[in-house]
Amino acid sequence: MLLLDKNGPFLYEQLFETLRQSIIQSDLKTNDALKPIRVLSEELHISINTVSRAYQQLLAEGYIRSVRGSGYYVENLSTLPRSGVLYRKGQKEVVRESIVPLKYDFNYESIESSFFPWTKWRKYMQDAMLEESCSAKIAYECNKGNVELRKSLCDYINNSRGVKCSWEQIVISAGTQYAMDIITDILHEKVNTIGVEDPSFIGMQRIFTNKGYSIKDLSMTDRGIDIDDLENSMCHLLYLTPSHQFPTGVTTSLTKRLQILEWAQKNRTYIIENDYDNEFLYGEKPLPSIQSLSTSQNVIYLSTLSKVLSPSLRCAYFVLPYKLMEIYEDRYKYYYSALPTYNQKALAYFIRDGHLERHVRKMSLSNRRKYGIFNKVVKESLAGVVKIFPAPAGSHSLIQIPGCKSQEGLITKMRLRGFGIYGTKVYWRNQQEAPENIFLFGFNSIPEEDLERACIEFACALKEIIETLET
Amino acid sequence: MLLLDKNGPFLYEQLFETLRQSIIQSDLKTNDALKPIRVLSEELHISINTVSRAYQQLLAEGYIRSVRGSGYYVENLSTLPRSGVLYRKGQKEVVRESIVPLKYDFNYESIESSFFPWTKWRKYMQDAMLEESCSAKIAYECNKGNVELRKSLCDYINNSRGVKCSWEQIVISAGTQYAMDIITDILHEKVNTIGVEDPSFIGMQRIFTNKGYSIKDLSMTDRGIDIDDLENSMCHLLYLTPSHQFPTGVTTSLTKRLQILEWAQKNRTYIIENDYDNEFLYGEKPLPSIQSLSTSQNVIYLSTLSKVLSPSLRCAYFVLPYKLMEIYEDRYKYYYSALPTYNQKALAYFIRDGHLERHVRKMSLSNRRKYGIFNKVVKESLAGVVKIFPAPAGSHSLIQIPGCKSQEGLITKMRLRGFGIYGTKVYWRNQQEAPENIFLFGFNSIPEEDLERACIEFACALKEIIETLET
Repeated sequence: MLLLDKNGPFLYEQLFETLRQSIIQSDLKTNDALKPIRVLSEELHISINTVSRAYQQLLAEGYIRSVRGSGYYVENLSTLPRSGVLYRKGQKEVVRESIVPLKYDFNYESIESSFFPWTKWRKYMQDAMLEESCSAKIAYECNKGNVELRKSLCDYINNSRGVKCSWEQIVISAGTQYAMDIITDILHEKVNTIGVEDPSFIGMQRIFTNKGYSIKDLSMTDRGIDIDDLENSMCHLLYLTPSHQFPTGVTTSLTKRLQILEWAQKNRTYIIENDYDNEFLYGEKPLPSIQSLSTSQNVIYLSTLSKVLSPSLRCAYFVLPYKLMEIYEDRYKYYYSALPTYNQKALAYFIRDGHLERHVRKMSLSNRRKYGIFNKVVKESLAGVVKIFPAPAGSHSLIQIPGCKSQEGLITKMRLRGFGIYGTKVYWRNQQEAPENIFLFGFNSIPEEDLERACIEFACALKEIIETLET
Repeated sequence: MLLLDKNGPFLYEQLFETLRQSIIQSDLKTNDALKPIRVLSEELHISINTVSRAYQQLLAEGYIRSVRGSGYYVENLSTLPRSGVLYRKGQKEVVRESIVPLKYDFNYESIESSFFPWTKWRKYMQDAMLEESCSAKIAYECNKGNVELRKSLCDYINNSRGVKCSWEQIVISAGTQYAMDIITDILHEKVNTIGVEDPSFIGMQRIFTNKGYSIKDLSMTDRGIDIDDLENSMCHLLYLTPSHQFPTGVTTSLTKRLQILEWAQKNRTYIIENDYDNEFLYGEKPLPSIQSLSTSQNVIYLSTLSKVLSPSLRCAYFVLPYKLMEIYEDRYKYYYSALPTYNQKALAYFIRDGHLERHVRKMSLSNRRKYGIFNKVVKESLAGVVKIFPAPAGSHSLIQIPGCKSQEGLITKMRLRGFGIYGTKVYWRNQQEAPENIFLFGFNSIPEEDLERACIEFACALKEIIETLET
């Protein structure tokens, strides 16, 4: 007698699974007849429909066959696909160390989940999946990505960053790193040295070296890269984060942007402008993107929705100058877009309906307030102990703790007290000369209402640690 | 007086948008007071909640400010982010040619949408998004991908393909091409020549040349690659599709699999085994994957869910031998996974609950029946006109039309009659010697119930065309 849990959600699935197990374990053998639908339905006190649905599923998956006018019979499983391959358990592996839970994590990569417009987003995703389920077939998306999304993003960056481009120049990518993989691949035959801000994000440095580029370090001033360094670098390509340099937080001045463009034009080089968190501005007026200032199609504009919307969306995009589009079309002709189709469609409609713009305004104001809170607490509670670097933009800030002699040491001590703080040493090219006492603070993952308390508790803990360091 | 459409879905959004427009167009000027909530609610005959919600939205996005005990006032927009940047329309571009609608498309890349378990999938996606919305923060996924998904896939390939690995060796990738980008990148320092089946998928050939590899062509026999070619190739790496060679459809015999492994071990080379549509088998017994036959950790197993589940999921995965894992960890240490997090989670739970296995059985049986239909019609209606290549697996079949002198010509003629058929010439390395008369037929995108009619109509159209060719 079969036993089903009538409070379980899918009665037919339970019946299907029970029968399937009987067949696999040979309780029901090849060519055995199954009970007629009506008989089983009466025996189990369940509807004819339920039994019929379970039988249909067994039929569809090839466990049984139907003989017209006679009934259902168990199939010969040995002729079915893959039944001959034995199950082999994977080798036992050590599971990674568990991460100590933190009370406050000043992570600069994650964002606060409750800030994300989940209800709207789920609706857009459902609609996009419904759309795909109603179409006749599911196909690959073209190499540059969904046309609707490219049009939406084009309007968005025309509008918000003055980027001069048509939607046909935009390529959607699954994250900034894959985008950079493609960009460096396209440019590689022409160039092999790249000028990079020092310090800079190690994830990008790694891509350049993985791709065989030689990196020329350009030191940072408080207005942007050092122009003398640039002039002496002899590099054929330049990678910059001018809106909000990572990690220093410096915004490249307008004068310097124009100097850089002049240099690039004179030397016939391309500039890769990574405008990754341009949306968050604390000053009065945003500076135009370098791409928008260029008159000679020599800037590759790159950005992402990871900071402003969500890192788990994996949507980055870049704008190729016309000359590079030709190379792209040639090399990536047989590629498909790497971001799932309905995610791209959902995003396209989300942006088209103005939700990205709204979200950016909301998040930008919140980040501005967060920056204010952070600044106030540090000035009040850590005066003389800590120096804040001015950061007129972005979702992280930089502080210097002059008393600190070991970055790793301080990070560990703070972690043990429940605070996640992050060092910057790793981003400097010359590790010997990298400062031990500069740290990164991200606001994106701590809710606004918790930030003041988080900063005050952080300040108290830091002062205590510094006092022990000094005694 | 404001006019709202009370049948519209979101009354508060309409009110928000109307007020926002008034502020942007300066109908409401800086420091103007907004009507008190109760007053506006009475004027418009809408609830206090609706007005309040619209005001809260305007407040959150920074259009208005709230003064305690006094009310709401319009903000000075010039201090708000990005208001200074002018809108620039994108340059006008020519929209690509529209595609002629086809009656029957024997595409081998798309799949039938109605076959995909959309209802289940949408539920899993919703659950995964809900899970993420309930967590405190949204973070990047680690470079190798979601652990749950890697565990689910590990069980799946242990079980179905006998692949010997632990989940820690599995890397999730956004599509097969990005996977191959990573694999070739990891191996590049060691090798620069790669042995590739001729013909083979041009998308992969392109990656190898893009990455600077030199390709050694290995001609195909009806049991797999030519072993003499392999012995003479002097290549340092081998790329194969042994389950169902693309495009010839050949399954590499067991003897040949063992010969290839012996060669690789002798020459200390790696084999990249692309098992892309291994799930569809028309013969009695599946052959074990090359990875499962190897005893010396020299096979990189690569597969995808594009053929068996959906190309728009963009989920490919590969299994790295332990030695290569070390290189991967070093080079990709600072990378993040390129597939959206909740898509990965949804897939993990979908596979864990057995739905992938069920779907594979169902689709495999359907494809087997489709192959039968196609074979039967071709044999009955095109005897003497067309030759079918035996294809014991996969979701496409190969036919030869001896009368055909121009592949492009026949494709165009058939397209004009509403049939999408696909040539194979492009996959041959030597275009001069590539056959003009071999074509690819995919079953995946035509529903089973339509296939017989599609094949019969195709046969009639083809016969007519061939007769005109001969006269």
